[in-house]
Amino acid sequence: MIIVLQPDRDDLKAIVQRVVQVAARFEGVETRPYAHTGTGHTFTEIHLVGPTRGVPTTVFEEIPGVLRVVRVSTRYRLVGRHHETEAAGFEYNGVRFGDEGLTVIAGLCAVDTREHVDLMMSALQKEGMVTTRMGAYKPRTNPYEFQGLGRECLPYVFELAGQYGMRAVAMEVTDGRQIDEINQALADAGDPTGVILQIGTRNAQNFELLKVVGQQERFPVLFKRGMGITLEEALNACEYIASEGNPCIIFCLRGVKTHLGDPHRNLVDFAHVPLVRRKTRLPVCVDPSHSVGSVDEAVDGIPDVFHAAGQGVIAGASSVLVDFHPHREVALCDGPQALTLEQLPRFVRYVRRVRETFEESVSDTAPATAADAIDGA
Amino acid sequence: MIIVLQPDRDDLKAIVQRVVQVAARFEGVETRPYAHTGTGHTFTEIHLVGPTRGVPTTVFEEIPGVLRVVRVSTRYRLVGRHHETEAAGFEYNGVRFGDEGLTVIAGLCAVDTREHVDLMMSALQKEGMVTTRMGAYKPRTNPYEFQGLGRECLPYVFELAGQYGMRAVAMEVTDGRQIDEINQALADAGDPTGVILQIGTRNAQNFELLKVVGQQERFPVLFKRGMGITLEEALNACEYIASEGNPCIIFCLRGVKTHLGDPHRNLVDFAHVPLVRRKTRLPVCVDPSHSVGSVDEAVDGIPDVFHAAGQGVIAGASSVLVDFHPHREVALCDGPQALTLEQLPRFVRYVRRVRETFEESVSDTAPATAADAIDGA
Amino acid sequence: MIIVLQPDRDDLKAIVQRVVQVAARFEGVETRPYAHTGTGHTFTEIHLVGPTRGVPTTVFEEIPGVLRVVRVSTRYRLVGRHHETEAAGFEYNGVRFGDEGLTVIAGLCAVDTREHVDLMMSALQKEGMVTTRMGAYKPRTNPYEFQGLGRECLPYVFELAGQYGMRAVAMEVTDGRQIDEINQALADAGDPTGVILQIGTRNAQNFELLKVVGQQERFPVLFKRGMGITLEEALNACEYIASEGNPCIIFCLRGVKTHLGDPHRNLVDFAHVPLVRRKTRLPVCVDPSHSVGSVDEAVDGIPDVFHAAGQGVIAGASSVLVDFHPHREVALCDGPQALTLEQLPRFVRYVRRVRETFEESVSDTAPATAADAIDGA
Amino acid sequence: MIIVLQPDRDDLKAIVQRVVQVAARFEGVETRPYAHTGTGHTFTEIHLVGPTRGVPTTVFEEIPGVLRVVRVSTRYRLVGRHHETEAAGFEYNGVRFGDEGLTVIAGLCAVDTREHVDLMMSALQKEGMVTTRMGAYKPRTNPYEFQGLGRECLPYVFELAGQYGMRAVAMEVTDGRQIDEINQALADAGDPTGVILQIGTRNAQNFELLKVVGQQERFPVLFKRGMGITLEEALNACEYIASEGNPCIIFCLRGVKTHLGDPHRNLVDFAHVPLVRRKTRLPVCVDPSHSVGSVDEAVDGIPDVFHAAGQGVIAGASSVLVDFHPHREVALCDGPQALTLEQLPRFVRYVRRVRETFEESVSDTAPATAADAIDGA
Repeated sequence: MIIVLQPDRDDLKAIVQRVVQVAARFEGVETRPYAHTGTGHTFTEIHLVGPTRGVPTTVFEEIPGVLRVVRVSTRYRLVGRHHETEAAGFEYNGVRFGDEGLTVIAGLCAVDTREHVDLMMSALQKEGMVTTRMGAYKPRTNPYEFQGLGRECLPYVFELAGQYGMRAVAMEVTDGRQIDEINQALADAGDPTGVILQIGTRNAQNFELLKVVGQQERFPVLFKRGMGITLEEALNACEYIASEGNPCIIFCLRGVKTHLGDPHRNLVDFAHVPLVRRKTRLPVCVDPSHSVGSVDEAVDGIPDVFHAAGQGVIAGASSVLVDFHPHREVALCDGPQALTLEQLPRFVRYVRRVRETFEESVSDTAPATAADAIDGA
Repeated sequence: MIIVLQPDRDDLKAIVQRVVQVAARFEGVETRPYAHTGTGHTFTEIHLVGPTRGVPTTVFEEIPGVLRVVRVSTRYRLVGRHHETEAAGFEYNGVRFGDEGLTVIAGLCAVDTREHVDLMMSALQKEGMVTTRMGAYKPRTNPYEFQGLGRECLPYVFELAGQYGMRAVAMEVTDGRQIDEINQALADAGDPTGVILQIGTRNAQNFELLKVVGQQERFPVLFKRGMGITLEEALNACEYIASEGNPCIIFCLRGVKTHLGDPHRNLVDFAHVPLVRRKTRLPVCVDPSHSVGSVDEAVDGIPDVFHAAGQGVIAGASSVLVDFHPHREVALCDGPQALTLEQLPRFVRYVRRVRETFEESVSDTAPATAADAIDGA
Repeated sequence: MIIVLQPDRDDLKAIVQRVVQVAARFEGVETRPYAHTGTGHTFTEIHLVGPTRGVPTTVFEEIPGVLRVVRVSTRYRLVGRHHETEAAGFEYNGVRFGDEGLTVIAGLCAVDTREHVDLMMSALQKEGMVTTRMGAYKPRTNPYEFQGLGRECLPYVFELAGQYGMRAVAMEVTDGRQIDEINQALADAGDPTGVILQIGTRNAQNFELLKVVGQQERFPVLFKRGMGITLEEALNACEYIASEGNPCIIFCLRGVKTHLGDPHRNLVDFAHVPLVRRKTRLPVCVDPSHSVGSVDEAVDGIPDVFHAAGQGVIAGASSVLVDFHPHREVALCDGPQALTLEQLPRFVRYVRRVRETFEESVSDTAPATAADAIDGA
Repeated sequence: MIIVLQPDRDDLKAIVQRVVQVAARFEGVETRPYAHTGTGHTFTEIHLVGPTRGVPTTVFEEIPGVLRVVRVSTRYRLVGRHHETEAAGFEYNGVRFGDEGLTVIAGLCAVDTREHVDLMMSALQKEGMVTTRMGAYKPRTNPYEFQGLGRECLPYVFELAGQYGMRAVAMEVTDGRQIDEINQALADAGDPTGVILQIGTRNAQNFELLKVVGQQERFPVLFKRGMGITLEEALNACEYIASEGNPCIIFCLRGVKTHLGDPHRNLVDFAHVPLVRRKTRLPVCVDPSHSVGSVDEAVDGIPDVFHAAGQGVIAGASSVLVDFHPHREVALCDGPQALTLEQLPRFVRYVRRVRETFEESVSDTAPATAADAIDGA
């Protein structure tokens, strides 16, 4: 059960206290406060956990300052969207992740040299971009493959990120100790940038890791759907993060594994973008690079990676995670799926153009008469 | 091996004759002429079938009037796109199916009453649309379910199609005799409209049926990918149609079956649109209704069926097959996935808007400098 | 609703008449008689089709000679197993297909030469086997591949079948005209053998073909599950055959397509054997050759095809369809998955041994005390 | 490259030293000794890691005491089976896991009460069984579901295990700290039993966890294939464990997720048993309970869980992991798939009977003549 309080009240603390007191009457029921920002307001919610089936909603509804009481039937209580008007998203280090606009997170799948990081970030800065991806810890199918440079590369990645004005670096982690290393490296560098902790597809149901990134509140989490799990299972996995205290989660689609996606690397699942938007409060990201897998698949001179990105954005994704590399022929990981720096401006122009079309389509709320349609078409 | 002749030659017949003579030197090799229209010209091709491995290309290349000789390595020889500049598509009864624009094929999944057909076509006419879908023969999973009205409904479907100016009615067939029935009903009604024969997903590898629709040349074929087969298998199935003599094929994506698509009916596979465009000469259609399955899945007031359609179109689909119904609550088949007539104008406006964005993205061939990008964004 | 009559009654005709009369009272309800053989008796059933929801069971139960009345909730009415004690199976041309024993249907996936047919059948005869498979019509993914010898090979196939004492030849058909050809060829040869019509995986939902094999009663049907459809869909497909009048159906599992089965050709689905046995009256066959795909996959000198066959049989399959070839290196179709004639005796010995173990396991109904177990182990 | 030494040599140390010296000539090449027991002998191997492509095999082959030198082309070097005669398996705490026989690991999916543990182990002891499964840490899809009793239950689980003569308790771990807890609880109880660390399907590609169980050598690891990953990926995951130093790994199949397995919980993948046996040195286990999912699916009074187990064993699995519960109706996790204690003796008798048949089939190496076959059948 969720008790939503009225926003912008001066007596918020007292209301919370009152709700907690009432809840205490019911044995086994615990309360957890939770703040959620949307549409310019901060909503405070008290979540009731435990045997709530016998708890009547009226005892909370009659408390002054309570906006509404929601019985939660879905299994994802915290990440779920419980009323139509909720907006998705959050702000981190000056960057907004949410329904208001489009954020492109372009960069290196795996950091290999300082020079490549430098070239990459320089190109991003020229496009006015302030977010990037830089893989340091790389989980690989085979133990003898390149596993990423690890903490060794963090000093120059963060230094250059600060230098080029990056506000957030998305970086996969596979173990809690890596978060300590990131914290340490940021501190050593004087906190020049922010970090988004990325949960990779293979760890999508590594619940211990999800708890760890949920227990820290410094960094938002970019959660990638497991390539073999249902959307329902993926949303439940995000609930693990949120239930530990960290509500700042970006939900990322990256294609699913099946024999029906060939010759693409995965079967693009971006038709799920509107589903995630309806079911949850989470901003939705798409990763066309890992979905499609090779930039050599192209038609009319346009790589399929563009088209997949376009499909995510036209359906409402508010961020795009995409692989670039200054010299993809020498990349140590996933080179074939990296776009080149020369393609960056056109890519950015393309997805922004598609985003505009998406926004126009949402704002088309005029009654749709036949006459209108013919004129407008 | 394919011998492509120079277009617009007066001595075409003589060149064909010469090619056939040369080919006759090689034992077991047969020749099949094939005409293909693209970019304003009609290309004549001679396909060499049989043991062509030992046949040198030079003996044909030196014949005056031969444009080029292509060794075919792909398994789909006729539907394959063998050179970059080929255009997809064909014209039928005054309607162009191909890369030049977008055709929306909206209508009833299953015809139930004359009145509904009337209401549907009237709405289409108001939008200036000249193509529709009208299901008469419905293959159903269970033998005791409604199997469509069959030939009984053809008279009024064709009569009304003529009355409302429909130029093509897409209609699934599951057996050769149904084509006879359609021919008969069209003749009885005075040929008031055209028909597109639709091959459903369950018959995607019913090779005998594919041969039958390939052996007739009157009607184009809309081929739906089987929901459990690979793209490669689907393209080979189309080759069955083409190899019997009918090159006018629309390739339709309609979602694939897996456990990873829930809660949609199928997993939308429209990321394959650019793949089909690159690999074949076939115009590509998408069917968002059967992919998504329910118009009640919606966000921001927009059904997921819109978003899926948008994803197909932004990736280059040149037609959209979509279910509407004047009274979906009484539809005998797939009612939950039918949009209402009130939603038709907005749907048409939406997909046309997305098509424009697609076309702009293709025509963006200017060198992509950083400066351009920032201005343009 | 199914009215089951008492078996072995002299006044059967009168009882049937009475049931039909009573049913006639209910508007829209039709009756269909249906005979089903099991456990040594022939049960006659009257199936009520149409709006039976309002029909009370009592009006039939009180008719003398009615054994029981079953309300059918499952969608497969005729192939469904509606009471626990029903036995599966039927007899055809002196061969029993059903729970009583194990039938091995070994032979050529595709007939290529008379000599190979001769060698194959000679080997079968030496093993005392009277059923075989001989593919004449081969549906292939690509139109340019070998499509089988068709009717051309039927004369010598049937002649040799008669000569070697074969009682049933399983043979895939993809079109109704092929059944005419088979009838004709059998007649020309003096009806020396029987035929089982095989429906291949690609035609599993080709409902028109299913109706055609259902409308004839001369030949039983071996139905292969579609490699991308659910068990429920496959059972409904069998219902198409039965609802047209032919109850003699063998349900064959042959592996399903997914990316998780590699390096086998398909993912073996023989765990569904007990499901089919519980849900239906159909005898269950397994096809290890098409499931596994290559006899070169082996361990301890035993090809995986053996192990897959063993898995089907230990779970209760009553027949095994398996590819052999006298010279697999020159086979025109699926050579890599054919066992050699030298392996035939061991294969037969193996599956019979496993069948014995299955039968022992079923008959182990003694109370399972701990002491028994230790002694028996 | 793998240098296999002759077994049972007195001068083993000197030979190892010599091999290491020779290897040291090649820059970047490291040596790792590895002992592997099979067919009654202990083979010592030296694995060469690094740039071995340019290293000739002859320099090792000429060292006295070297049995053979194998160039490793597969990606799983340590778990791979590199020569036909290798035997799978290892011994732990007096129990042999390997090709020599069948081990049934029956027990509680999730420990709930001391009483149930007591009843369960008592029943096992009566059957003469010395291995069991006892789930303490349960990863669940949703964070609000029962997550297992954790370390709280370890004292009585180990105490009772000792009391009832259990030699190994299989127990899933999801985090390295749990191994510390297990070590501590065992020490506190006076080390009355052994433990097998189980890696669950959701952590099959949690490489950090795999490294942790690989870095300890006290406990063997039972690795469950991820339900959405290929066999190749699963074997590579095992290589993570082995490459950290722990070669004692049991490979467990437990069904894969797809839409084609319904109404079973998963699609049983036990046809992969012979594949794992051929490709690796790992003993193979099957888990029929999680594959099938419900013991209420049954035919002829035999639950499908029996049949699935039989399918694994007839194909060569040397252990079976299976859920039982004294009172399944009150089980906190997966109750519907637990067999009852009354079914235990029959289950054990059944799988042992099937195992015998498997062993007979392997030992049938006599030339398979037709005459033999008829007599034997």
